[in-house]
Amino acid sequence: MGKALGKDATCSIARSLDVVGDSWTLLIVREALVTGATRFQDFRDSLGIASNILTGRLAALVDEGLMERRTYQESGSRPRDEYVLTEAGLSLSTVIAALSDWGRTYRPRPDGTSPQFSDAESGEPARLAFVTGNGEFASPAAMVARRRPDYPEAA
Amino acid sequence: MGKALGKDATCSIARSLDVVGDSWTLLIVREALVTGATRFQDFRDSLGIASNILTGRLAALVDEGLMERRTYQESGSRPRDEYVLTEAGLSLSTVIAALSDWGRTYRPRPDGTSPQFSDAESGEPARLAFVTGNGEFASPAAMVARRRPDYPEAA
Repeated sequence: MGKALGKDATCSIARSLDVVGDSWTLLIVREALVTGATRFQDFRDSLGIASNILTGRLAALVDEGLMERRTYQESGSRPRDEYVLTEAGLSLSTVIAALSDWGRTYRPRPDGTSPQFSDAESGEPARLAFVTGNGEFASPAAMVARRRPDYPEAA
Repeated sequence: MGKALGKDATCSIARSLDVVGDSWTLLIVREALVTGATRFQDFRDSLGIASNILTGRLAALVDEGLMERRTYQESGSRPRDEYVLTEAGLSLSTVIAALSDWGRTYRPRPDGTSPQFSDAESGEPARLAFVTGNGEFASPAAMVARRRPDYPEAA
């Protein structure tokens, strides 16, 4: 994290990848979002990630403001840390959902599964979609993308 | 690519990260989507990526079915390869847009810029959003995600 890739410091995609471009990082966020995991041991056991790698990724997630480290204590045991997603971390739900939809479509598995997202307040299931100004859904494969006019030309 | 992370072969997110979990891979796809780049030299110059890394990433993108290698020839020069996004590659527009929206919100820059997506057919600008069953938009930070009932428990 923090090492800008290529020449792209102005591009919002490159800036995001700088923070979450690591697969373990996104899988930790997924685990927190989908299972509500907060403890080191839960992340380690469910992801099968090596402890030293997990330690580094959690520290980076805290440094980057995606998780908050809190101390909790169960009766009779010593204080421990837990890791809770911040608003910035929770907002990666779009990235997680986009990856999930893509995987379900282009890497299907008979036993494959995906998270179901829903609105916390209403409980209504929600899906991620491209929506045009007049409220129509548009297919991801039919999107064109253009740099906005103010995009600085490469020097 | 191809090395399953952790214990998650059934999870559609882990399967996607297996293919596109590398930051350079997503930046190459972004470049193809946003600038229409197809040639090795264009990717190399605009991304500032080392030739040997780019060679490997393009080969992997072709192997994974995200890009198609085509041969073209300009008059008076020898045949060259170009790399064109397939439907699977184009459909990563959701992942690119999700990363872009997150970066614009949580890593803003005064000179920062992002791609504008629009529907290829109608030309209508489109944005990525969570939409509930009754057509309401829902905030990414207000999403809860749950494993669907058929998600297999870890052994």
